[in-house]
Amino acid sequence: MKITILTLFPDMFLPFIGESIIKRAIDNNIVTVELVDIRDYSLEKHRHVDDTPYGGGAGMVLKVDILKRCLDANRRPNSKVLLMTPQGKQYNQKMAEDYSKLDDIVIMCGHYEGFDERILKYVDEEVSIGDYVLTGGEIAAMAVADSIIRLLKGATRDESHEDDSFSTGLLEYPQFTRPYEFLGDKVPDVLVNGNHELIRKYRLYESLKKTYLRRKDLLDKMELTKEMQEMLSQIKREND
Amino acid sequence: MKITILTLFPDMFLPFIGESIIKRAIDNNIVTVELVDIRDYSLEKHRHVDDTPYGGGAGMVLKVDILKRCLDANRRPNSKVLLMTPQGKQYNQKMAEDYSKLDDIVIMCGHYEGFDERILKYVDEEVSIGDYVLTGGEIAAMAVADSIIRLLKGATRDESHEDDSFSTGLLEYPQFTRPYEFLGDKVPDVLVNGNHELIRKYRLYESLKKTYLRRKDLLDKMELTKEMQEMLSQIKREND
Repeated sequence: MKITILTLFPDMFLPFIGESIIKRAIDNNIVTVELVDIRDYSLEKHRHVDDTPYGGGAGMVLKVDILKRCLDANRRPNSKVLLMTPQGKQYNQKMAEDYSKLDDIVIMCGHYEGFDERILKYVDEEVSIGDYVLTGGEIAAMAVADSIIRLLKGATRDESHEDDSFSTGLLEYPQFTRPYEFLGDKVPDVLVNGNHELIRKYRLYESLKKTYLRRKDLLDKMELTKEMQEMLSQIKREND
Repeated sequence: MKITILTLFPDMFLPFIGESIIKRAIDNNIVTVELVDIRDYSLEKHRHVDDTPYGGGAGMVLKVDILKRCLDANRRPNSKVLLMTPQGKQYNQKMAEDYSKLDDIVIMCGHYEGFDERILKYVDEEVSIGDYVLTGGEIAAMAVADSIIRLLKGATRDESHEDDSFSTGLLEYPQFTRPYEFLGDKVPDVLVNGNHELIRKYRLYESLKKTYLRRKDLLDKMELTKEMQEMLSQIKREND
């Protein structure tokens, strides 16, 4: 896979591409990450990339001609072009899984809130990482790139994505490691006794419970097995 | 405000704190950002911080004793302690605004999915930046810190937060800058004519329309003025 990031701050990504999992994926040719400085496509003397908005108002707006020139020079026919913006589609794990199957992704991040609307005609998808405003799209682009790369085959050692939060549709069950007792809190007995079927049931129950108590909206989107439905009835009896 | 970030990868934050808006806020003493390496609180020879999970399974789990020791050494009595995790409360602009009023925030980011559950007793809030899984909590912590810092008084030049997406409850209206015409697409007439009241109405209408078409869920949470209700009726007539 190739991920190309169009940004005003390419240096912001240097530690990201040097971070252990991402670096290993790059070193093993699982992914190529290319950083492109949008300013390189400004034809202006001082490499300006933005201008004041038509109609007035605060803030500067990234110019459509520069963005288009940068995009044209760095996209390929099979590129999926994403624009990071708080007005975009809410990013989720399902989208990460879909994107992780693509060969070529271009992520455009500019001022997070000020780009000339006419660039939208040339991008495939506007993507938002959440309902909050950032100074730039760079952190958002990192989140998207990171969530995709860790799903690529060979990128992580344990390939443990089946238990990821959201992959099952549920929040993850609680984890414990040594010490067995910490300031009076012990690890639940079931995890210590080594009965795999009981451990599986405990974890499924705890996942369902956490999801029910915190994120009922996720449960509404799922098809529950008979076992899960029975557990959920018990959870409701105990918590409502 | 002081923001303390507890992390396994403090270097990942260096370009973040050097980025223009954040750097200016730090230089002007609007915010202090302290980076703390969790590994400094490991007592083990090779500075290990994690161990295998009780009950088996893939992945490593961050140890509660090390996290607690790190937290105790770096929190103050008035600190609000956030733990970045996909199981947390969904972060949004309202939370960013609330956090921006605090004096002291500690953000703990470890393996994004594997920390010993017993640490939860010692944190104030579990926070998720969205329904997707990241390799670590670092990018999530950056998103939270960035969204808070840009709201601090004096951090941005234009103080234009009233028009931010989500601050009004709506997605932002479209922006345009020069050139007036680009590949056949012109800037809307209303923005060029200089009638401020018409511009205001146009922008409100476009904000409402974008929100209605993309994020009806945001409209459900809002109280609409009479003007907005009338516009929304028109938008529904034209788009349903």
